[in-house]
Amino acid sequence: MSVQPALYADLKKQSARDVRAAIRAGAYAGHTAGLAPGKLQCNLAILPERYALDFLRFCQRNPKPCPVVGVSDTGDAMLPTLGDDIDIRTDVPRYRVFRDGQLADEVTDISDLWADDLVTVALGCSFTFENALVRSGIPVRHLEAGRNVPMYRSNIALNPAGPFGGEMVITMRPVAEDRVRDAYAISAKYPQAHGAPIGQGDPATVGIRDLDAPEWGEPVEVRDGEVPLYWACGVTPQNVLLAAKLPFVITHSPGHMLIADVAEDAETTIYKP
Amino acid sequence: MSVQPALYADLKKQSARDVRAAIRAGAYAGHTAGLAPGKLQCNLAILPERYALDFLRFCQRNPKPCPVVGVSDTGDAMLPTLGDDIDIRTDVPRYRVFRDGQLADEVTDISDLWADDLVTVALGCSFTFENALVRSGIPVRHLEAGRNVPMYRSNIALNPAGPFGGEMVITMRPVAEDRVRDAYAISAKYPQAHGAPIGQGDPATVGIRDLDAPEWGEPVEVRDGEVPLYWACGVTPQNVLLAAKLPFVITHSPGHMLIADVAEDAETTIYKP
Repeated sequence: MSVQPALYADLKKQSARDVRAAIRAGAYAGHTAGLAPGKLQCNLAILPERYALDFLRFCQRNPKPCPVVGVSDTGDAMLPTLGDDIDIRTDVPRYRVFRDGQLADEVTDISDLWADDLVTVALGCSFTFENALVRSGIPVRHLEAGRNVPMYRSNIALNPAGPFGGEMVITMRPVAEDRVRDAYAISAKYPQAHGAPIGQGDPATVGIRDLDAPEWGEPVEVRDGEVPLYWACGVTPQNVLLAAKLPFVITHSPGHMLIADVAEDAETTIYKP
Repeated sequence: MSVQPALYADLKKQSARDVRAAIRAGAYAGHTAGLAPGKLQCNLAILPERYALDFLRFCQRNPKPCPVVGVSDTGDAMLPTLGDDIDIRTDVPRYRVFRDGQLADEVTDISDLWADDLVTVALGCSFTFENALVRSGIPVRHLEAGRNVPMYRSNIALNPAGPFGGEMVITMRPVAEDRVRDAYAISAKYPQAHGAPIGQGDPATVGIRDLDAPEWGEPVEVRDGEVPLYWACGVTPQNVLLAAKLPFVITHSPGHMLIADVAEDAETTIYKP
């Protein structure tokens, strides 16, 4: 699938609902960064109901990597608390289907895979605080470089629940020394989007061997006078779901998020029509 | 059970852990307002696992009245993410036991009632933002008057989940006109404790007929130059659980809360030893 640059440029001017309509119609299957500015974008985990209670417990116990912003009824594809007429089977640009902990397929529509026992869990994502950093004049290196954010397995143990546990996945963004405090304060305002950094400075303290060798995404330069800041990452729940080897899980494809109608700076993530 | 004023005065100087130890030993069974200052206090719902997923969905969809701060494993009485050695069977001063939606008993220990299918859900409570208001020089009338906060059934529909739904229960605190904005800003900092008010002014707009006739608690005076502010109330989930007529639910008794080891102004409600 190409990036569809002309369509992407056109979609950038449209509402969350119109972007979802284009995705639902099969017209757009690209990434969602920069689309529907100001609206909450969400990581996704769709899993059988028998695992949902443990997964929600896991998320509650690990709110920085796993901030729950919406949960569907069992077998119901709609997410009314996140927006108008959101159908999770069709309204995300691209999905990953995992069977027994292995990637089985990547698709743009999961209508054929939907089942009566499925529960959708939507989780906040880093776009929210990145947008806030940029608005406050704190540049985000990987965005400037047109790269995906560097992601690392950390040594930070997660609070387990049922079959779910392991270590937190973290991201790194270099910030100028004199803006580090601001970066903490700004991102702390978004607990629904990973909140404040979980650490800073020496990569070894968070279990990173080499900043230039992220496990996911692409490395970015840390310049003189900059401090590497580490945030909890929304890849954590995906990783934990895979490690648990559930028979069946669907997630979004990285960067291809659900766009909600909720404002990313709203007091709660509950949509009010 | 008497209020045990001498013991209460002594406990006010002690840590959350020491207060829980006194409660566990059966030495104290009074209210917890003002105890372990700065620590998070929690509303409680203990219910059979088969209702837990729907109840967590209900809380996620109604975060202002039902801010989840801790969830136990099924059948496990401990709450390690809220503090050291918290045993929910013994560490709350007083519990209410409901059967089929009716109050069946009020007890100071639920060890005999504990069962392998029970799940504890802890929810934030208004003590947290009330303390913050008082610290900021905004008096809280019912505290000054030594009364329980007035609570009302509102006309604000809750987002339903499974058997759970109905209308939000709200509290009222009168605030001087020139501090109303501050009261919003201060309480908004505590999303784990009902957050900002859900309304203000004319009681009719939130479905209250008579401010002097609260459904629970006691009325307080609204003086000239004051605005009644309405907050989502932690009685909401109790009320919703009762209306659902679950065969078995245990809650705390009003005012007799679980005291956690988590700081009430911490970024998350997850205890770090």
